[in-house]
Amino acid sequence: MKHYMRCNVLDIDTLLREIKQEIKPKPEDYEKVKSIIEPVIDNIRKFSSKYSEVSEVSLQGSLAKDTWIRGETDVDIFILFKPETERDILTSLTRKIAHKVFGVKRCKERFAEHPYITIEDFRGFRIDIVPCYKVPAGNLLSPTDRTPHHTRFIKEHFDEQLKDEARLLKKFTKGIDVYGAEIKKEGFSGFLCELLVLAYRSFMNVLERFSSGQLPIIVDLLKYYEDPSILPEVFKSQFVVVDPVDRRRNVAAAVSPTRLSEFIAASQTFLTKPSKLFFYVTPFKPKKPEILFKELERNQRSIVGIMALIPVLPPDILWGELKKALRIIVNRLKLEGFKVVKSSVWSDEREYSIFLIELESRYLSRYVKRRGPPVTSSHSLKFAQLYGPGSAISGPWIENNRWFILAERKWVDSVKFLEYLLSSACIENLGLPADLLSLWKSSQPQIFPSPEVASLAVNENFSRFLDFFVDGRPRWLRISF
Amino acid sequence: MKHYMRCNVLDIDTLLREIKQEIKPKPEDYEKVKSIIEPVIDNIRKFSSKYSEVSEVSLQGSLAKDTWIRGETDVDIFILFKPETERDILTSLTRKIAHKVFGVKRCKERFAEHPYITIEDFRGFRIDIVPCYKVPAGNLLSPTDRTPHHTRFIKEHFDEQLKDEARLLKKFTKGIDVYGAEIKKEGFSGFLCELLVLAYRSFMNVLERFSSGQLPIIVDLLKYYEDPSILPEVFKSQFVVVDPVDRRRNVAAAVSPTRLSEFIAASQTFLTKPSKLFFYVTPFKPKKPEILFKELERNQRSIVGIMALIPVLPPDILWGELKKALRIIVNRLKLEGFKVVKSSVWSDEREYSIFLIELESRYLSRYVKRRGPPVTSSHSLKFAQLYGPGSAISGPWIENNRWFILAERKWVDSVKFLEYLLSSACIENLGLPADLLSLWKSSQPQIFPSPEVASLAVNENFSRFLDFFVDGRPRWLRISF
Repeated sequence: MKHYMRCNVLDIDTLLREIKQEIKPKPEDYEKVKSIIEPVIDNIRKFSSKYSEVSEVSLQGSLAKDTWIRGETDVDIFILFKPETERDILTSLTRKIAHKVFGVKRCKERFAEHPYITIEDFRGFRIDIVPCYKVPAGNLLSPTDRTPHHTRFIKEHFDEQLKDEARLLKKFTKGIDVYGAEIKKEGFSGFLCELLVLAYRSFMNVLERFSSGQLPIIVDLLKYYEDPSILPEVFKSQFVVVDPVDRRRNVAAAVSPTRLSEFIAASQTFLTKPSKLFFYVTPFKPKKPEILFKELERNQRSIVGIMALIPVLPPDILWGELKKALRIIVNRLKLEGFKVVKSSVWSDEREYSIFLIELESRYLSRYVKRRGPPVTSSHSLKFAQLYGPGSAISGPWIENNRWFILAERKWVDSVKFLEYLLSSACIENLGLPADLLSLWKSSQPQIFPSPEVASLAVNENFSRFLDFFVDGRPRWLRISF
Repeated sequence: MKHYMRCNVLDIDTLLREIKQEIKPKPEDYEKVKSIIEPVIDNIRKFSSKYSEVSEVSLQGSLAKDTWIRGETDVDIFILFKPETERDILTSLTRKIAHKVFGVKRCKERFAEHPYITIEDFRGFRIDIVPCYKVPAGNLLSPTDRTPHHTRFIKEHFDEQLKDEARLLKKFTKGIDVYGAEIKKEGFSGFLCELLVLAYRSFMNVLERFSSGQLPIIVDLLKYYEDPSILPEVFKSQFVVVDPVDRRRNVAAAVSPTRLSEFIAASQTFLTKPSKLFFYVTPFKPKKPEILFKELERNQRSIVGIMALIPVLPPDILWGELKKALRIIVNRLKLEGFKVVKSSVWSDEREYSIFLIELESRYLSRYVKRRGPPVTSSHSLKFAQLYGPGSAISGPWIENNRWFILAERKWVDSVKFLEYLLSSACIENLGLPADLLSLWKSSQPQIFPSPEVASLAVNENFSRFLDFFVDGRPRWLRISF
């Protein structure tokens, strides 16, 4: 990958220096955090002290590690419980403490492994109150127990320069839309970005490494493994970053192959044509439904939308189920012979979701050539007897060592097929996640072929999603040229 | 294959006994052959005796081996030349002798390795006068030199019973349309049938062996090879019958995989549902073009006919070139994305040929999903730069480790594509056999989509061919149920 034209290195340096300045919190930002958040933590400590189950209250996340980006302050306050505390108690005490500090109305309950509390806007900050167990890194009782260890590790290993580099990498992954380890995104966590910077010493080195396209990418900072080349096999992944506080965990496990590839490709493009646009997302203006309708009408694309209600579920569960449902529907289409171009699912995470599936063509040929058994198999005669009397459209005939027939397809119109698939006659047998199934049985998802799918773009968020789906390109590619 | 219902063995025995009686020549048939053919041979001997190059004149083929079928008498008279004779001399003397005996007008020149003479109808017989060299089996100068050795081998090893069995097998292979080693047919030669009967001792045993579907089928009567299991590898075939007079030759080499499979499948069907119809071909009545037109109009099949002139060539050369041309055209269609159901070529062997190609659909989708390079390849950036600016219909986007785009197809209509393919703009670059190319350049083949292809059925022979193509089934399967 060394042979393509690189942008003048000086230019990139200037560009990155500028961005570093822009995203680094200013003294007044630190002041503001201190003045608002420290009293909150003190307050939580005060209320927690009544409960012998609570060991400690501490600030975690990018704020604690000082790797946060100016203007993007998410506050993670962890309540560390003694390991003998029962889960119910941990949950109920967290709730009780949060209610005391912020009032019941401001507290929104969220779910990861166990519930945590979010205060959407506390004087300009979003605050998460997260319970975990205070345990050594080797004795984890829940996934969130790792966080304090991660925070400590980064604080111990980062200097000012590395913090700047980590901010750059986080901002870049956000800009190219691969940031976030949640199921919806399947991308890079903040901790992963920090470890990559620690391993390669700078943002540019990370990009050089990934843009080379050489896989696997393996990082084992503390050299837990004598022979790191076994790690892709061990972790079943081409991208392994061993967790420095838990050698059996791959910090990059959440990164899907597609997200990894997008990071690789974006690195290649950025290094060739560097631009601030890779870091800063200026949201596209949503198009009006009428505009999208006309576009879809003109280009005759075969995009089907399926609008479906969603149950109340924690986001990771919801997105896991929506993605599974999408996979199931897409596989059924493929089995029927439809050529799926791409597919994606959108949701407002409150009321409904829209599955988008693009096909090469809405319709299939009426007839299809089907393969029968080899004449040398024990099924040969049965096949000849079954179709020999003329029940196929044409054949059976023999080609090389096999029987073939021309058959009439059961489903020629993908829209009719999808309607059947999601009808009460069929929906129970698809293997859909139970939450979705029970909801969709009483309220059948609606099919919108193109161009009618454009009418759903009354939701501006979905309008952008559909617009991007039609365009097909990742945002960073769309704005690079 | 032993577990399917077999017809009562007695019934088959009765059936086969009847057929044996019907196809065995009667004393009066032998009388007729003797009275007509012996004088001819004497005559040829007389004229040949003037030429010192001629060693011998002898009757060959099924008549000499007494494995001919009543009413199907092809007479092969071989003129055996001394090995030092030059090829031109061999050809010109054969011509001279034939002209003397039959008169110039009755002699039609044919071509195999070297030319031979056919007299289409000499008092009810078709006579071939074939030149060859009289050489030991190990020193062949031309393929026809083997024939006298084959004849001798069969005469030495056959008794009356084996002759009957060989007649049955020949009649069966003719009935199921797999008889004939010529390029057009790619089937079983008479000699191959005889060797199979010799190896398995009876018609029924041959059918049992093939119907089992166990491949490879290996016959090495004279045990030339210590380990016959190497023969499929040596001869690159699943069906090897070592020539008893030439151990390096596979007598079954001409049998295509499709023809072998048809024989296997027909054996399975016959043993389950024996019938005289497997042996006797009652030709279907040709359908009128209007009838076929209506059929094709109704069923909406996508059958394209290509009518093309043919050059004057020996049949084996002609069929080799026609089949090659068909393969080339079919491959081009496949490369363009068309789904080819089946294809075949017909010719009157005098003036023209018709290629028939059935597609799942005449039209393809306007758009197609195309795979780009992996993001890890050195082509990744170039691909992003090429399509990134928006020159694809949609994308490029990344799926797993690869780039993809949605592209517009160049060819959506197979008929238009074929017209382009065979136009002067393109036809030179297809790699067509030179004989066909030079003819088709001056006289472009004509495309007939269905249902218009039915209009070509004014030729009754082609009408049957098209009818069978539409039906799809081999004749024996069509009449079995």
